[in-house]
Amino acid sequence: MALGTIHHLSSQITLTNRSHSDAQLGRNASLLLKAGYVAQLGAGLYTLMPLGLRVVQKIEQIVREEMDALGASEFLSPIIYPREVWETTGRWDSIDVLYKLKSRSGSELCVAATAEEIIISAAKRLIRSYRDLPFSAYQIQPKCRDELRARSGLVRGREFRMKDLYSFHLNNDQLNEFYEQVCQAYVRIFTRCGIGARTIRTFASGGVFSRFSDEFQLLCESGEDTIFIDEASSIAINSEIAQDLEALKAAFGDRTYSLTEHRAIEVGNTFKLGSRFTDAFGLKVHDPLGHESSVLMCSYGIGTSRLAGAIAEVCSDLKGLVWPKPVAPYDVHIVALEASEQGLQLLNELTRTLKHQGLSALVDDRLDIRAGEKFFDADLLGIPKQIILGNRTESGQVEVKDRASAEVSVVRIEGVVNLL
Amino acid sequence: MALGTIHHLSSQITLTNRSHSDAQLGRNASLLLKAGYVAQLGAGLYTLMPLGLRVVQKIEQIVREEMDALGASEFLSPIIYPREVWETTGRWDSIDVLYKLKSRSGSELCVAATAEEIIISAAKRLIRSYRDLPFSAYQIQPKCRDELRARSGLVRGREFRMKDLYSFHLNNDQLNEFYEQVCQAYVRIFTRCGIGARTIRTFASGGVFSRFSDEFQLLCESGEDTIFIDEASSIAINSEIAQDLEALKAAFGDRTYSLTEHRAIEVGNTFKLGSRFTDAFGLKVHDPLGHESSVLMCSYGIGTSRLAGAIAEVCSDLKGLVWPKPVAPYDVHIVALEASEQGLQLLNELTRTLKHQGLSALVDDRLDIRAGEKFFDADLLGIPKQIILGNRTESGQVEVKDRASAEVSVVRIEGVVNLL
Repeated sequence: MALGTIHHLSSQITLTNRSHSDAQLGRNASLLLKAGYVAQLGAGLYTLMPLGLRVVQKIEQIVREEMDALGASEFLSPIIYPREVWETTGRWDSIDVLYKLKSRSGSELCVAATAEEIIISAAKRLIRSYRDLPFSAYQIQPKCRDELRARSGLVRGREFRMKDLYSFHLNNDQLNEFYEQVCQAYVRIFTRCGIGARTIRTFASGGVFSRFSDEFQLLCESGEDTIFIDEASSIAINSEIAQDLEALKAAFGDRTYSLTEHRAIEVGNTFKLGSRFTDAFGLKVHDPLGHESSVLMCSYGIGTSRLAGAIAEVCSDLKGLVWPKPVAPYDVHIVALEASEQGLQLLNELTRTLKHQGLSALVDDRLDIRAGEKFFDADLLGIPKQIILGNRTESGQVEVKDRASAEVSVVRIEGVVNLL
Repeated sequence: MALGTIHHLSSQITLTNRSHSDAQLGRNASLLLKAGYVAQLGAGLYTLMPLGLRVVQKIEQIVREEMDALGASEFLSPIIYPREVWETTGRWDSIDVLYKLKSRSGSELCVAATAEEIIISAAKRLIRSYRDLPFSAYQIQPKCRDELRARSGLVRGREFRMKDLYSFHLNNDQLNEFYEQVCQAYVRIFTRCGIGARTIRTFASGGVFSRFSDEFQLLCESGEDTIFIDEASSIAINSEIAQDLEALKAAFGDRTYSLTEHRAIEVGNTFKLGSRFTDAFGLKVHDPLGHESSVLMCSYGIGTSRLAGAIAEVCSDLKGLVWPKPVAPYDVHIVALEASEQGLQLLNELTRTLKHQGLSALVDDRLDIRAGEKFFDADLLGIPKQIILGNRTESGQVEVKDRASAEVSVVRIEGVVNLL
């Protein structure tokens, strides 16, 4: 097993900035800024500080594992795209959130906002026969969108990190089968990130892409979206299309339903694109009978940094963040109160034990900070378990506090690992 | 130990494009395109295909480990920066390679090209006392530069992935000590990437930053740079400053020297920036005597995708790429020639063994491809070891070929792991 990571709070650029408070930004941004997970660079632009980056990296590792399990290949496109690639589908002019720029030599480019055109350009060389289908590929990279108003911190910024997956198919049966597999992978991703129970697959508008799409909506009172849930069937529908009879029929068929209104944050979406984009690029294959056939396409997004913001929005209490274990920046937050030789010895023993167990820890051994402030910061940072090394515990004993329940156990240092 | 990864060539978007040939692009781009490691999106813009991404990820993991060992924290800034941040140092107008853009609301931004201003904005809140120094932080992200002419594939594109490290210091002694530690880390990085023996620390111009800097130059006949090496002292100097008496004195002191000319590719650089940028931001601390003191700064870059290109440029032969083991996309390339039940059984047994040993393999079991073509592709792709499962080997035996030396051993399948 790999050794765990031990970092010291004082050596990380993660020092909390407790003076920060900005109600305008929404709960997630306010907490993440206050606890030093992110720093704001401009309107809707956030730098991921070491703690915030660790959360996003954990989410991205979960996403990567689930994409790999689908058999999708990971690639990575540039973050600036030439105008020509977008002209093929006419989206250079139709996407209003593209950040456009001109090079010194006069060529026009835009900053990555979505990548259907890019993956088709690459896939076109590789997909030549129906035998090459289904084919799927994904990337994880920053995307930028020129939103007129940036709101709600990481949840809707002008730049965010995104996993974008694309799949290509011979016919609708093959498409639908893979599409469902991706939706199941999305359910596993949100479950593994600790928000599975409150994330609802929701029937939604297809936007510019198609008639309908699926969204994954995290229930949250401060969410931007309104959805209606039929509790009996567990089917949800976005309010945008709740007046649309065709949509209601597609969602509920002949079932009777009783809808209750909820606020939610969109944490993932999946689109069936049909052949609109592939036809524009002339991507066609011969089917088993030798007939030329359009290639059908889907695209699937999860904003990984937005997901971090959404988790922060719902996983918190009055004292601060309460990270689900799988996405917490560290397993343990060590509050070291005793600077005596005995205290340092205990700290060394503890970090050695954690490290050998492959557990990661953030150590708060700042000298000039009072115990109360350290407790305050530990609750604010929201790491799942706190270990308090203080002079109140008998020699060799430590307090282990569960951040979520606030339950405290006093154990001998050898027994700590069993509690984590 | 983690399980190794097994991918099938046919399911990856890594299929070779052997028809590709473009002498204009330079050897690395030509080979990487031909072998399917990258795809070109525009002038100087390359998509990392799955094989290419794996190489860059391996390099970045080595870089990350060495940065972490220095005690530097990893952060991640946005890829678009507001104009205001650059105005503080006057570099909005002075850096000619900035890609600038305007948002719909009229604000001006640029695409990340370097990040001194960004890290100072973040560090300013955290560095308050001499006790907070030295302080260092790094990120790994794409950078874009509006080069008038993009040349030589990944080595000098318009976009590249870069590790940028920044350090902050109280005085020159502290700065010099850390700077030397970083240079030693760079030496370890290039050694671990397999090019240590031909990468030379070179005395160079400080450009716009300072009087002098250090470059790490990879000896290569097709390199863009010219350096002069004094073999006796192992000191090298960039040709740009080889006529500069002050530079020669700084490099060689009173030593006698005899310079020989070499071509090389710059794979890393380190700059002592002094207080130019920190003063512009008003980043000052109180020293132990209570006097206000400027904070000194250094910046250190390694273009991780450029490094992949540079390694490809020098680690190749007439048949294709010859990756050093630590940065190869897979440990093993399996050439499966036998589609019989016995052949498939042997393949399964082999991949299971490799997987349990934590080794990664690329399996070429394409059905419609002749043996000769598979051998050709295996040499082109340049994975260090090839395992050939063919009908010529007795039951249970396989051929193991070393890509670099072309030596072939015939071993029983149980003995394969010992050879890798």
